[in-house]
Amino acid sequence: MSRVYNFSAGPAMLPEEVLKEAAEEMLDYRGCGMSVMEMSHRSKVYDDIIKGAEATLRRLVGIPEDYEVLFLQGGASQQFAMIPMNLMQNRVADYIITGQWAKKAWQEAGKYGTANAIASSADKTFSYIPDCSDLPVSPEADYVYITENNTIYGTKYHTLPNTKGKILVADVSSCMLSEPVDITKYGLWYGGVQKNVGPAGVVIVVIRKDLIRDDVLPFTPTMLKYKIHADNASLYNTPPCYGIYICGKVSKWLLKMGGLEAMKERNEAKAKILYDFLDSSRLFKGTVRKEDRSLMNVPFITGDADLDAKFVKEATAAGLVNLKGHRSVGGMRASIYNAMPVEGVQKLVDFMKKFEEENA
Amino acid sequence: MSRVYNFSAGPAMLPEEVLKEAAEEMLDYRGCGMSVMEMSHRSKVYDDIIKGAEATLRRLVGIPEDYEVLFLQGGASQQFAMIPMNLMQNRVADYIITGQWAKKAWQEAGKYGTANAIASSADKTFSYIPDCSDLPVSPEADYVYITENNTIYGTKYHTLPNTKGKILVADVSSCMLSEPVDITKYGLWYGGVQKNVGPAGVVIVVIRKDLIRDDVLPFTPTMLKYKIHADNASLYNTPPCYGIYICGKVSKWLLKMGGLEAMKERNEAKAKILYDFLDSSRLFKGTVRKEDRSLMNVPFITGDADLDAKFVKEATAAGLVNLKGHRSVGGMRASIYNAMPVEGVQKLVDFMKKFEEENA
Repeated sequence: MSRVYNFSAGPAMLPEEVLKEAAEEMLDYRGCGMSVMEMSHRSKVYDDIIKGAEATLRRLVGIPEDYEVLFLQGGASQQFAMIPMNLMQNRVADYIITGQWAKKAWQEAGKYGTANAIASSADKTFSYIPDCSDLPVSPEADYVYITENNTIYGTKYHTLPNTKGKILVADVSSCMLSEPVDITKYGLWYGGVQKNVGPAGVVIVVIRKDLIRDDVLPFTPTMLKYKIHADNASLYNTPPCYGIYICGKVSKWLLKMGGLEAMKERNEAKAKILYDFLDSSRLFKGTVRKEDRSLMNVPFITGDADLDAKFVKEATAAGLVNLKGHRSVGGMRASIYNAMPVEGVQKLVDFMKKFEEENA
Repeated sequence: MSRVYNFSAGPAMLPEEVLKEAAEEMLDYRGCGMSVMEMSHRSKVYDDIIKGAEATLRRLVGIPEDYEVLFLQGGASQQFAMIPMNLMQNRVADYIITGQWAKKAWQEAGKYGTANAIASSADKTFSYIPDCSDLPVSPEADYVYITENNTIYGTKYHTLPNTKGKILVADVSSCMLSEPVDITKYGLWYGGVQKNVGPAGVVIVVIRKDLIRDDVLPFTPTMLKYKIHADNASLYNTPPCYGIYICGKVSKWLLKMGGLEAMKERNEAKAKILYDFLDSSRLFKGTVRKEDRSLMNVPFITGDADLDAKFVKEATAAGLVNLKGHRSVGGMRASIYNAMPVEGVQKLVDFMKKFEEENA
């Protein structure tokens, strides 16, 4: 067995020890005689798994008691509808457009009310985060929505927007659990887990309890009501059991690694290796305004599409895989989530140096 | 490691060789250096997995080219909304109420139009399937809906309803892939996979292509449009990748076992062992009208709740687990899906005989 360094934007690398444990427990979870995939979601043993996953996450992030933790399905894309359906009481919401995912969320919200794009970085291919210190927040807005880390473009809000008292809703899919977070700044904080936390098919939603209501918009499917899931502790119907089990293991691993403060240090160190090289390279350059750079997704280019393709091909052969940029932007992108070890980033930079010598 | 016989109604037993393969491939899927959980859903290697799962399913079931196969999320409960949102063009649909799940589907459809309950077996605690040869099908009905196998009550349609030309929509969650099926009798045939096909978190929808439309009901979330998923071959957003991979393996195992004809024989043989015993027992009795019995879910009682509880407890100690009936009906229920070996059912009957001798 030879593991590669996988720079995929998601689904992405998982900690090797989590995968090893999962493999060991596959046919018999801790002596119960069955796989976690085979368990009734109403059994005591599974109840311990899902409650344990929630408790570990609460401890890791520091989620206060007045916030609900939900394990849902359908990815962030389903949240794009679920959020307005549940929160748009005045049928008005403000969106900050920092990339494709924010745009999709904004367009979806437009089906359910007035969705205002109050800021955007589309003018420069989403290569920066707009100044959000004094935005024209709508007086009637039910919430202000952001994509906190932009997977495709490699930007990140390092300061949260001034929402002028409105509820902040954030898609944190690609920065979830990568650094400490003050949940009380958000009304709703959510992400698909397939980048930093687990396998695709689980969305973690952390929502302030007073925002969970029964009188959602008409026509909201039962499965798209936060209240149904909150009232049933994420067990209204059969949840994505196995995915939740892996999320629990990853959260435990993060605690063991020292928690989110330690992960932040580790992620900063990893990103620094790559950004420092990009800033000094004669061949490669980063595409994002320095102060808005993501610690998780690092896009870069040579400026020559053929050379980019050559780089991706040779890197793959060297065991550095999935470095091709998103199909909508081209170039390269290294996603260096929690589970990517420092050595992986170092190996990438060594490879880039060698490539530069050979091709500059 | 000691595996139990798991009679859970779902999530349920999976073939041991599928689990073994999954464990072996956990850290390195066929030399690609990563787990299936870590792969980009846009990668070539994952594309082969999802396309392979679809191809195997098509071959196994005999799904014609004019039907689309979709791998979705949210369980059957989400389909309860998705079906009317996509199919209720006249805003009328007919439902046959044969248990809790049919009832929930019917209630959800009532949000979107006129949902008529045109037959029901509620009068006898859903212990039979109503005569569906000449039902008052609504002239305007967009479809007739059934739950083909009723997991909680242990009934199964052995003859499909006469829909008088209307489209038949069927929830086959608990009988999917347990016997041959003529897909052309259905407009939409779907099920959560966590009983016969894979781990919770995947729903397989087989839908006739001409029923897939863009002009769905207003307010339908993008993620709840069949067209979006059909146009994108189930890759509109990140699908539940790992679950789909396991479904592919189970379908392959079914082909190896001889296909659905062979599974039907095997399932009939298994069910016969249990039903024959129930019909001759002095202590236990089945709760379902004989001609409507399910091959998958076999509910039974002693008539004494304390004795039922004692039975469940002692069976568990003997490695025969999850025999407690659904919380809404009590008694016992043995779910004997595809992956339950004949020996498991034989062991259960042997245990029941012994229990009967000791307690009758």
